[in-house]
Amino acid sequence: MNLKKKPVTGMKDITPREMEVRDYVIGLIKETYGKFGFSSIETPCVEHIENLCSKQGGENEKLIFRILKRGEKLKLDEAQSENDLVDGGLRYDLTVPLSRYYANHANDLPAPFKALQMGNVWRADRPQRGRYRQFMQCDIDILGEASILAEIELILATSTLVGKLDFENFTIRINDRRILKAMAAYSGFSEEDYDTVFIILDKMDKIGTDGVAAELLREGFDGEAVQTYMQMFAGVTPDIAGIRALKETLAAVLDEKVSEDLETIIESVCAVKNANFEILFDPTLVRGMSYYTGPIFEISIDGFGGSVGGGGRYDEMIGRFTGAQTPACGFSIGFERIVMLLMEKDFQVPGKEKKTAFLIEKGMPKEKLLEVFAQAEELRRQGECVSMNMMKKNKKFQKEQLAAQGYTQIKEYFA
Amino acid sequence: MNLKKKPVTGMKDITPREMEVRDYVIGLIKETYGKFGFSSIETPCVEHIENLCSKQGGENEKLIFRILKRGEKLKLDEAQSENDLVDGGLRYDLTVPLSRYYANHANDLPAPFKALQMGNVWRADRPQRGRYRQFMQCDIDILGEASILAEIELILATSTLVGKLDFENFTIRINDRRILKAMAAYSGFSEEDYDTVFIILDKMDKIGTDGVAAELLREGFDGEAVQTYMQMFAGVTPDIAGIRALKETLAAVLDEKVSEDLETIIESVCAVKNANFEILFDPTLVRGMSYYTGPIFEISIDGFGGSVGGGGRYDEMIGRFTGAQTPACGFSIGFERIVMLLMEKDFQVPGKEKKTAFLIEKGMPKEKLLEVFAQAEELRRQGECVSMNMMKKNKKFQKEQLAAQGYTQIKEYFA
Repeated sequence: MNLKKKPVTGMKDITPREMEVRDYVIGLIKETYGKFGFSSIETPCVEHIENLCSKQGGENEKLIFRILKRGEKLKLDEAQSENDLVDGGLRYDLTVPLSRYYANHANDLPAPFKALQMGNVWRADRPQRGRYRQFMQCDIDILGEASILAEIELILATSTLVGKLDFENFTIRINDRRILKAMAAYSGFSEEDYDTVFIILDKMDKIGTDGVAAELLREGFDGEAVQTYMQMFAGVTPDIAGIRALKETLAAVLDEKVSEDLETIIESVCAVKNANFEILFDPTLVRGMSYYTGPIFEISIDGFGGSVGGGGRYDEMIGRFTGAQTPACGFSIGFERIVMLLMEKDFQVPGKEKKTAFLIEKGMPKEKLLEVFAQAEELRRQGECVSMNMMKKNKKFQKEQLAAQGYTQIKEYFA
Repeated sequence: MNLKKKPVTGMKDITPREMEVRDYVIGLIKETYGKFGFSSIETPCVEHIENLCSKQGGENEKLIFRILKRGEKLKLDEAQSENDLVDGGLRYDLTVPLSRYYANHANDLPAPFKALQMGNVWRADRPQRGRYRQFMQCDIDILGEASILAEIELILATSTLVGKLDFENFTIRINDRRILKAMAAYSGFSEEDYDTVFIILDKMDKIGTDGVAAELLREGFDGEAVQTYMQMFAGVTPDIAGIRALKETLAAVLDEKVSEDLETIIESVCAVKNANFEILFDPTLVRGMSYYTGPIFEISIDGFGGSVGGGGRYDEMIGRFTGAQTPACGFSIGFERIVMLLMEKDFQVPGKEKKTAFLIEKGMPKEKLLEVFAQAEELRRQGECVSMNMMKKNKKFQKEQLAAQGYTQIKEYFA
């Protein structure tokens, strides 16, 4: 019988070259986040279907890979719907499993609990270039810390990490869900329309101010509200001064603690940052997920479109899952996108060991072979990579193949 | 709504303490095997159901987690059997995906191809202590190398790895499938009975020589054959001399190259080994999987029952999958078992950084806070782990929790 050679639709095999880059980035992540006191945890890739379908996942819940019940539990004849056949699914993010983990281990966990999760998630999205149905997510979360210490640590840790990667500059944009809402309220939108307004506002970087205004009007919103709203954005500078100006304008609809906290976050990050980046106030930053309750942030690498990570505070989610209110804040880094960008610029992993290939002629007597093995062992002890190979008839081609694998030195041993 | 708190049946959450040990072992594996020229690859966790059900997986095929087809392809009403609903499954080992990977990338891969795979596999086994339905496998394989260079490199790499772990001594036992068969042939068993005979022989370490003899007789085998067979085992020493003696006895039924190769493997490993272990010839070693065609080996840690890894040559499998004959040899290390043994002996990961916790009193003015963050940053630059915490009312308990997380130093900053 012959195998189907290609991976399943939308998933990919990872080559040695890409694995080198991935392992390098994983190592950097573990090391950097470790220095900030984040502890690694892992949860199973398979999650209870009830947990996955709890309405916290938004659109992602439509994309779940469902797993058949095992053994006698499966009654195909009696099954009325898919749900009768399914009791598990592949996780579509790491936040639902984190909530379950937190609930499961609540008694053993320190407060605050600083978690680092790296793991695959699965979404049955329409396959497209650079997006796969299995991909690695990398989240840091601080559970149980209500103050902006959480935001500052998350942003510092993430910017330290990205700063160690091979990119020139990057930018962090920050906003607060409560500022978003206050601006909408101040302009005269009603609360039930906020989500619609924010979805349109979120297109700002694609369609510009005029585009957003036009779309809000097309949606039927009051012209005066739209005008007030757009003028406010036009007048705000992306810095502390901008936050202070907005604080004055929104005095009636926004707790001043919100903008003061945002100032402190930005100033703290600027004061200790050790990488080449800017942190900007961006009142148009929305972030898709509606579960955010406070500061939200996004990180992008200059010269590459789109974000390579984002996060924010979500104080109500864990409680909704577990029944116990728990403040929470997280930052997720776009692992696959970072790896892709590094691959595209032909990034070379630093500090690679010297690679030597031994070519051994066929028929070498045992005593001599033992000596060659001992030599290889000695080089390995000195930190080199040594690969033993039988010498082939087409030695030229063999050497080319080895060179392509990074073997810069080749030693030949004749029988 | 409340979450189901426990992980799905038979799978487990991994705590920070266990993750530390796992990450340490993973790092050691990547480093050690890298020195021997193994390149990491990865395949998707989801595999075509046809590939998984190709009869190469033996009993494991009964334990597959099956994944529902996505979208319109799912026709529940018309489905006659499970297979109409399923097009993928979670992989139960890394060998089937390796074969598919090899077929998929044949043109780009060097020969021989030395692959390192670490990844989760899933088997719906009956849950029991220490065995889970999701577990990490760690395989090294050399594809395209027909000579015993493959066996020697695999055994050296694996013994180097285990030697770096925190165990006193270990033992590698080695045999050859062809010696197994020759011994059965010499004793007078017929070829169609070999599998039955080997399954019984495999119980030697549990029921002893007498037990095996009794069970062979109960199975109805000829008394004289059983007697010859058992006497042969009794007379063999577990060393080179034993192999040589057997070679004489089996001269009529065994190619002498087989035993000579086995000698060379053992002598080469002994000559360059750099860890505290013995390599023994064990003619009773069977290894379960019937796909092995040549040398087979198993590694066990002295003082702990059962093996922590094993492997062998399987020259016919890749060809059966891909249509192109490819010699292959692999060694799989029992990652989960090694981690469990290390956890049980309370293994401490070496070279951990110093961990310092900062406690910050509530209400600290911004200017002072920035200074504290700068101090934390400075310590991190020096290589320490620093975690920032708001000072709690119950400071004693807070400090105890931090100490339990390994924070040996605590600094307090008052507003």
